[in-house]
Amino acid sequence: MVSRLSSRCATLLRVVAQMRLPLHSFCIFRSLFPQRRPASNPQTRGLSTAAMRLVQFVRRGASGGVRVGVEQGAGGLGVVDLKAFDPSMPSTMRELLQLGDEGLDCARRALASGQCVVERSDLQLLSPVLAPEKVVCVGMNYRDHCLEQNAPIPKEPIIFSKFPSALTGPYDDIVLPAESQEVDWEVELAFVIGRGGKHIKEEDALAHVAGFTVANDVSARDWQMRRNGKQWLLGKTFDSFCPLGPALVTRDAVGDPHSLAVRCLVNGDTVQSSNTDQMIFQTEALVAWVSKFVTLTPGDVFLTGTPPGVGVFRKPPVFLKKGDVVECHIDQLGSIINKVV
Amino acid sequence: MVSRLSSRCATLLRVVAQMRLPLHSFCIFRSLFPQRRPASNPQTRGLSTAAMRLVQFVRRGASGGVRVGVEQGAGGLGVVDLKAFDPSMPSTMRELLQLGDEGLDCARRALASGQCVVERSDLQLLSPVLAPEKVVCVGMNYRDHCLEQNAPIPKEPIIFSKFPSALTGPYDDIVLPAESQEVDWEVELAFVIGRGGKHIKEEDALAHVAGFTVANDVSARDWQMRRNGKQWLLGKTFDSFCPLGPALVTRDAVGDPHSLAVRCLVNGDTVQSSNTDQMIFQTEALVAWVSKFVTLTPGDVFLTGTPPGVGVFRKPPVFLKKGDVVECHIDQLGSIINKVV
Repeated sequence: MVSRLSSRCATLLRVVAQMRLPLHSFCIFRSLFPQRRPASNPQTRGLSTAAMRLVQFVRRGASGGVRVGVEQGAGGLGVVDLKAFDPSMPSTMRELLQLGDEGLDCARRALASGQCVVERSDLQLLSPVLAPEKVVCVGMNYRDHCLEQNAPIPKEPIIFSKFPSALTGPYDDIVLPAESQEVDWEVELAFVIGRGGKHIKEEDALAHVAGFTVANDVSARDWQMRRNGKQWLLGKTFDSFCPLGPALVTRDAVGDPHSLAVRCLVNGDTVQSSNTDQMIFQTEALVAWVSKFVTLTPGDVFLTGTPPGVGVFRKPPVFLKKGDVVECHIDQLGSIINKVV
Repeated sequence: MVSRLSSRCATLLRVVAQMRLPLHSFCIFRSLFPQRRPASNPQTRGLSTAAMRLVQFVRRGASGGVRVGVEQGAGGLGVVDLKAFDPSMPSTMRELLQLGDEGLDCARRALASGQCVVERSDLQLLSPVLAPEKVVCVGMNYRDHCLEQNAPIPKEPIIFSKFPSALTGPYDDIVLPAESQEVDWEVELAFVIGRGGKHIKEEDALAHVAGFTVANDVSARDWQMRRNGKQWLLGKTFDSFCPLGPALVTRDAVGDPHSLAVRCLVNGDTVQSSNTDQMIFQTEALVAWVSKFVTLTPGDVFLTGTPPGVGVFRKPPVFLKKGDVVECHIDQLGSIINKVV
């Protein structure tokens, strides 16, 4: 069967070469044959430690829905369309993560192939995860942010949530709701669960994390601090209040996630500037803590808290207005840039 | 095409009759032909107002995963397997609701057919909705519950949430977590969104509700009231802390959802006894309120708050312990019965 497939592949490759078709046509032919992981190909064996920047995208002006891709380089170049490379692969990040190593290995081979590349100008990036079961958020998790508001350093993580409907793409608009006059920014390191579990130990926790990305935990302070019985949910979960991206950067691509510069700029002015080394509860502690309460699932998104410099604690307070542009940047991960409309 | 299918159906029916096969065999043959809604069949036209009790189930001892079904009668009889009746129908309630009227019409025809029935003893009921995008909860929403704790009547709904991972079936166990010593009961009327939307007006809201069911908003009072920075989420969202069911009773099957007797019994003793007429913010108001913040999606579950009689406000307080059996009952909807383990 394998040799018959190989022979058909070779024939097709000759046809493609003779027809001088562009690369994406090769991908169409290629997609007729599922690309399974070779059992012991020395060329792919070393790839399992290769770092990746995984994205979700739609092709501009085309139907076909959400696709998972792998960035060539750190954002400037094209994106390898995973399902074009191997039609047996899923179309969403959550499904890809559910496949575990099989999915990530395929993504690595796709990247290494240099095939099935979609140009930047032909795609729109989405949030790297959509429709997760959970968006878990952590409050008061930066030492310097606690000092900013004269609050004590928490002895336990403070956990709240957003609904998944709040997620939006790395360059999408933040929609100011008529219901709030106090919409604020919060740059945050986010991570995404790759392997689910319950009662995960701190020492095992990093193995459950697929990778890291950048979030803006947009917050309506009037609703968070003074209304809804002081339950934070509503002020945190308006539609578009969770820009995420630009890419899910795999764990092995980030040296030390707790030593990354973190910045937020509003209209080009730096308003937050800190480092993830200020985090009180780090990734491992948060995975262990939250999994004491709930079973974690591939695709679950964690927002790990924000450093000082938010608008509500400025004197006088400053809030977002229509036309503002907010950039959240974390070293090694990239920037999300969202216009307020 | 239709006449060819009809002719093949008639032939198959004759074959089945001659073979004296049991009913489920007929369903297997029948499943070869997708059952689409007839355009203008007078026999089905009247069905659109028929009330239904929709469930999710798995067949005991069989593989095949989750199925959607329609109860024959109010719980005592069998369940019509929707996908056996029409293989073009989805296997989950959330997908069925996404189909809108087409899905519900098919369920009505399946019920009317009396075919593809799974006996009670052959199935295990699941939560009528699994993996919703949102589990929206309302706090302090019964006048008599506010009086019980000397709290003012809220002027706006107080909204919090559980993660969907907390959902469990109508007869499944509530698992006492080692992390809490104060696990309490809360019987609640729940409703499920059938048609999504944003900024839904109160006068249109009921058209967005697929139906009603019974929930137990199980709550770890130590975590809800004294820890996690007084954010309720963690205390409300331990795994198994949201038993739901037994059926999603369609809107047209419930006369007035705001005039239903509500009861909770622990080991047979009535601990909560009230009526949904005590609700401060009713279904329509809650749909309108929450949809000001977030886009609602088919399958979203709302828990509408609990009446007085919870354990934490008893003198002395009473909490659930291993071996307890909690029954939550609402007239016209039925009972969920969960053992504490």
